Amino acid sequence: MTDPRAAPIYLDNNSTTAPAPEVVEAMLPFYTEHFANPSSPHPGGERAADAVRAARGHVAQLLGGSPRDVVFTSGGSESINAAFGAARLAHPERPRYIVSAVEHSATKASAKRAGTCVEIAVDANGLLDREALFAAIDSGVALVSLLFAGNETGVLNDLAGIGDACRAAGTLFHVDAVQAPGKMPIDAPAIGCDLLTIAAHKFHGPKGVGASWVRPGVALDPLVVGGPQESERRAGTENVPGIVGMGRAAELAQAFAEDERGLARIRALRDRLERRLVEAIPGARVHGAGAKRVANTTNVLFPGLEASLLLALLGEFGVYASAGSACNAQRSSPSPVLIAMGISPEEAASSLRFSLSRYSTEDEIEAATGRIIEAVGTLHALND
Amino acid sequence: MTDPRAAPIYLDNNSTTAPAPEVVEAMLPFYTEHFANPSSPHPGGERAADAVRAARGHVAQLLGGSPRDVVFTSGGSESINAAFGAARLAHPERPRYIVSAVEHSATKASAKRAGTCVEIAVDANGLLDREALFAAIDSGVALVSLLFAGNETGVLNDLAGIGDACRAAGTLFHVDAVQAPGKMPIDAPAIGCDLLTIAAHKFHGPKGVGASWVRPGVALDPLVVGGPQESERRAGTENVPGIVGMGRAAELAQAFAEDERGLARIRALRDRLERRLVEAIPGARVHGAGAKRVANTTNVLFPGLEASLLLALLGEFGVYASAGSACNAQRSSPSPVLIAMGISPEEAASSLRFSLSRYSTEDEIEAATGRIIEAVGTLHALND
Repeated sequence: MTDPRAAPIYLDNNSTTAPAPEVVEAMLPFYTEHFANPSSPHPGGERAADAVRAARGHVAQLLGGSPRDVVFTSGGSESINAAFGAARLAHPERPRYIVSAVEHSATKASAKRAGTCVEIAVDANGLLDREALFAAIDSGVALVSLLFAGNETGVLNDLAGIGDACRAAGTLFHVDAVQAPGKMPIDAPAIGCDLLTIAAHKFHGPKGVGASWVRPGVALDPLVVGGPQESERRAGTENVPGIVGMGRAAELAQAFAEDERGLARIRALRDRLERRLVEAIPGARVHGAGAKRVANTTNVLFPGLEASLLLALLGEFGVYASAGSACNAQRSSPSPVLIAMGISPEEAASSLRFSLSRYSTEDEIEAATGRIIEAVGTLHALND
Repeated sequence: MTDPRAAPIYLDNNSTTAPAPEVVEAMLPFYTEHFANPSSPHPGGERAADAVRAARGHVAQLLGGSPRDVVFTSGGSESINAAFGAARLAHPERPRYIVSAVEHSATKASAKRAGTCVEIAVDANGLLDREALFAAIDSGVALVSLLFAGNETGVLNDLAGIGDACRAAGTLFHVDAVQAPGKMPIDAPAIGCDLLTIAAHKFHGPKGVGASWVRPGVALDPLVVGGPQESERRAGTENVPGIVGMGRAAELAQAFAEDERGLARIRALRDRLERRLVEAIPGARVHGAGAKRVANTTNVLFPGLEASLLLALLGEFGVYASAGSACNAQRSSPSPVLIAMGISPEEAASSLRFSLSRYSTEDEIEAATGRIIEAVGTLHALND
């Protein structure tokens, strides 16, 4: 019997993560002692500017790039929007923006705002139709914007050669790497993209701060103008504690992503969770199981159950999960990502995402598995 | 003799303020325990959403408005940019954007990006030429954007009747109230504006979060699209700790602004600082002294001295001040605000701003006065 007083088990890390204790510790002095404006010409301001500089270095290291190519923003959605702005600035005459069918809503909305949004299909595993993509890239395309790792399924895109194809057509290439830090090494220059987006709160950093990696020579059309901050690419007083927290989170994420054992441990926990659910629940299936996926994510079909009801009951049982992107969560329609993978609306509306973190423990996964199976049983009993 | 080891005296509160201890205390649990995404459909997400809702209420109270009319943003610059976006959306065919000559750089840059920027002159005290303003408002004007209180001088704008004039011309009216919270009561609906901007870090809240008050019926053109947050007016995962901090800061600022004795104490300290500097330093003069000003700000001319040198020496002496807007601070040219007041470039380049806070003490102002006079003497001795 599930004890509702048990500590909740947080398996919604693709929505957001708990800031690491080291991150909070790093941020605190910038709320208390070192609170000055980095633009202020006094020792207080210099101390804050030094901290921003150090954080920029850590984020650059995480991305394999140079500090001068890192632009701090208010988060992933802003950075994604900024990538489309850069493409519109570079190619005002090009009508088309290519995205995959499984992109985040910020990408699709930005594409629709910028011009004609061309969606490239994915297969049943969520893998991009690369042939269709290469065929679509031409001199009428301002930007190609693709996920590094899918937020709903964890499926990894094969990005090889796409940068070259874009370059040949003069098209800009943006990679939404929001789900990547701490889950794999990232090398933005080697990916061959022109812009790459990350958000601190997805890798145990604070909410309200993100970063764009921008290839030298690519100009941003600032979303916010009116100050010299971020080398005139993003105006406004810097969110110093947030940036400091992002820098510390970047250090920790990079160290974890380079630690094969850590990732293997998470993968083993995730795999065990999947296996036990599929074994225990008739008809249960893992979406994207046939593709390479990040270690922490699983998206499971619970046939015949309404995901929203299962989520609510799991919430009472102390297991926090999600029915897809938090940015779609308040909408009642089933996940467009799963629909794009050819999954029926009924099955999409019966699927839940569980996303682990480097803080997930064996005991938690063990307990969560039991509670999920119990909740599914409870709902099936009600249905009967 | 100044003791350089003495604790620095922070008189740069118009650049940014120290977060109040109550603010940091309110934020911390949202970095540690309540870190979930407010859009997530589980008790963790609901807890975060509740906190955002409560903060929105506190900010609405500060502004005399309704919670549904408050849109959280990443800061003052973003909210200012958004106001111009709203005007462009409402009036794509109107070419002109009216600002005063002493606006913040975010306002002027936004106006220039949106269309033709019409600058209304100010007098020697920094007071707006209201006659010229009323004459300029017509059906070719998309937006009038004016400061509530000047960031460099503290001069208060007389905004009476401007909202009516704008409404008669179908022009939108935006008030940059970034320097107002905690210094005077604010009633956005009564001001008669359509949009009003504040930034948490200017009133002892955190950096990286601001708010737009938007009159019902006025549509924002979201700077960031792709999620349902902020009622589709500003996409992206909410900066929950920042928003919680802003809410707490709003409560505290409102309480202080309603406490006549508190404001009178700050004003008395500021007036004493001014008086002693003017008495001790030949030719010293206070900019905007003939106008109504907020209680905490003074901008002083130190004839014959280079402000940047004086600032640097004051930094060593442990007095932190500013030579104008932090958003202009890294530019070498003298303050455009002082130039607009008819002050010569030489005098503008010899002027410093000291801005107090509700935490400023009599001892600090006493010590700062002595150190400023000493620093001025040191520089004059070097010049001789």
